Amino acid sequence: MTRHTAAPVHETALPVTYDDVAAAAARLDGVANRTPVMTSRTVDARTGATVFFKCEPFQRAGAFKFRGAYNALARLAPGVRHRGVLTYSSGNHAQALALAGRLLGVPVTVIMPEDAPAIKRAATEGYGARIIPYDRHRTTRETLAAEVAAREALPVIPPYDHPDVIAGQGTAAKELFEATGPLDYLFVPCGGGGLLSGSALAARAHAPGCRVVGVEPEKADDATRSFRTGTLHTVHNPDTIADGARTPSLGQVTFPLVLRCVDEMVTVSDEALLRTMFFLWERMKLVVEPTGALAAAAVLEGVLPVRKARVGVILSGGNVDLGHVLRLYRRAGTLATDVTQ
Amino acid sequence: MTRHTAAPVHETALPVTYDDVAAAAARLDGVANRTPVMTSRTVDARTGATVFFKCEPFQRAGAFKFRGAYNALARLAPGVRHRGVLTYSSGNHAQALALAGRLLGVPVTVIMPEDAPAIKRAATEGYGARIIPYDRHRTTRETLAAEVAAREALPVIPPYDHPDVIAGQGTAAKELFEATGPLDYLFVPCGGGGLLSGSALAARAHAPGCRVVGVEPEKADDATRSFRTGTLHTVHNPDTIADGARTPSLGQVTFPLVLRCVDEMVTVSDEALLRTMFFLWERMKLVVEPTGALAAAAVLEGVLPVRKARVGVILSGGNVDLGHVLRLYRRAGTLATDVTQ
Repeated sequence: MTRHTAAPVHETALPVTYDDVAAAAARLDGVANRTPVMTSRTVDARTGATVFFKCEPFQRAGAFKFRGAYNALARLAPGVRHRGVLTYSSGNHAQALALAGRLLGVPVTVIMPEDAPAIKRAATEGYGARIIPYDRHRTTRETLAAEVAAREALPVIPPYDHPDVIAGQGTAAKELFEATGPLDYLFVPCGGGGLLSGSALAARAHAPGCRVVGVEPEKADDATRSFRTGTLHTVHNPDTIADGARTPSLGQVTFPLVLRCVDEMVTVSDEALLRTMFFLWERMKLVVEPTGALAAAAVLEGVLPVRKARVGVILSGGNVDLGHVLRLYRRAGTLATDVTQ
Repeated sequence: MTRHTAAPVHETALPVTYDDVAAAAARLDGVANRTPVMTSRTVDARTGATVFFKCEPFQRAGAFKFRGAYNALARLAPGVRHRGVLTYSSGNHAQALALAGRLLGVPVTVIMPEDAPAIKRAATEGYGARIIPYDRHRTTRETLAAEVAAREALPVIPPYDHPDVIAGQGTAAKELFEATGPLDYLFVPCGGGGLLSGSALAARAHAPGCRVVGVEPEKADDATRSFRTGTLHTVHNPDTIADGARTPSLGQVTFPLVLRCVDEMVTVSDEALLRTMFFLWERMKLVVEPTGALAAAAVLEGVLPVRKARVGVILSGGNVDLGHVLRLYRRAGTLATDVTQ
């Protein structure tokens, strides 16, 4: 059941708290990579701000998703782990959960569209997961997941709408604040809101004055509209290059968290996203996937005024194959970037 | 005059010592980036070794060259800095020297072929350097440099064959050893031998048992042949994608250093280099230029047996524009990489 107005949640307790994030960090210690925080003189000169990039492309399996996936599986009682879990994803969550399952001895089943890129399927199978392909035109992943979960008595670990997943994702921002101290702004990519919710919880604990800004693609602005209206909006198959933000809407757990803990939502165009990706590649030598560059795009394109501020940016993932970059690059034509730093 | 056999140098004192490297490190402190050392579970699983990557793509101006360039300019007496310096390079040394000149108030003039890529020229001019273009078919850069240097009374800071440049380049390996402790192997890209010589000096001081291995492209194996025969070999315009290693030969300063301080020289094919670049991009999320991937290619392609060893690898630079990568990718076709880590 989807909650259609958010008014009541303002009076309820939060479904995830900073204590959950801190507990997740303890579980991830020595397992997840403590990813580097990078800076760029060029970025600081261009923005007039001091910008810190938390680099989750260097996380295991190439994206922040490993944090939430591992935390969720580590919370399963040891006696039930061998029975396995189920998820649905064609993206980073599938690979992350498959890897976490391999590390913790939890068999992982992934419901994936039969037309998912071969490389994503191969990566997920490479970590030892079982794939159940489905025809997108004949059923939805949620329906099929419910059927399989019931038949095989498997718990579902969804990509974002789950307290343990959210708590795990919050550990990236926790590490960022531990490295930088208080910040004035924290920009975070937003798809289903798992990373954004978790990051906001970390910000409230580490830097209460920090404004947390979620960033969506212009063409998939459901969370922005939901945030501004207090009513859950959805999008259907939005045409954006940020494939990790094509999620239809915030979730039952993430929507109230975003409403209460996030300060602002903004959007960036696909063109801005491409410019930013290419800038990060050519100037900062970082491979960042389109969704992973959302927050950086908001800062580099000046969507909000951040001059003289201390600004955190989460680069959320780097899983993009070169063939795909080639197609994006052709589509964009030559994008001039300045060449000094 | 080129020294054609190296026998006598074994009896002479080294033209650069570890003390010079240590002094360079002090000059670079707080100016150059102390670049990160990265590891990869995938690489360790594939090689059976423990591999540490020193990531110079994150150096200022995108390559290790800033270290040597800045050190050389910082050694100029303050009273003569305003008179400026001259160099010849169409690559990373030109940008590095231009940036170092801007930071230290030294006007930099660069002799560059008139058909050098526009982006390289723009980057160098962007740092404030003056460019003197020349026609490669009518003169050599060394001849023109000697003419201009004499006419304008400018000291020449060449790309590698200079004690202060070599000492500066050695600081990257020094930082690597400080981060990792002793290593069994250190793999270093080799063009003119500046980085390799400096790295070998650092290795002798920090890990006397460490075998230092220089890596060249198969098609530009002049240093390997020079090393094995003790006689200086040259190549002319070698057809390799590793543009930073197209230098004709080791230099008068670097050749004796390489002979005395390096333990082995090996080569890798351009195909191996491409596979390695794409692996570093897709799996480690690092943008590395072809020359910058030489040492990594030797390790990943198993050119020497390193199983169970602790291995250092210098990734020397990341200055490659996406258009160029596109062309390389097309030329290579689809290169399969394994997908688990």
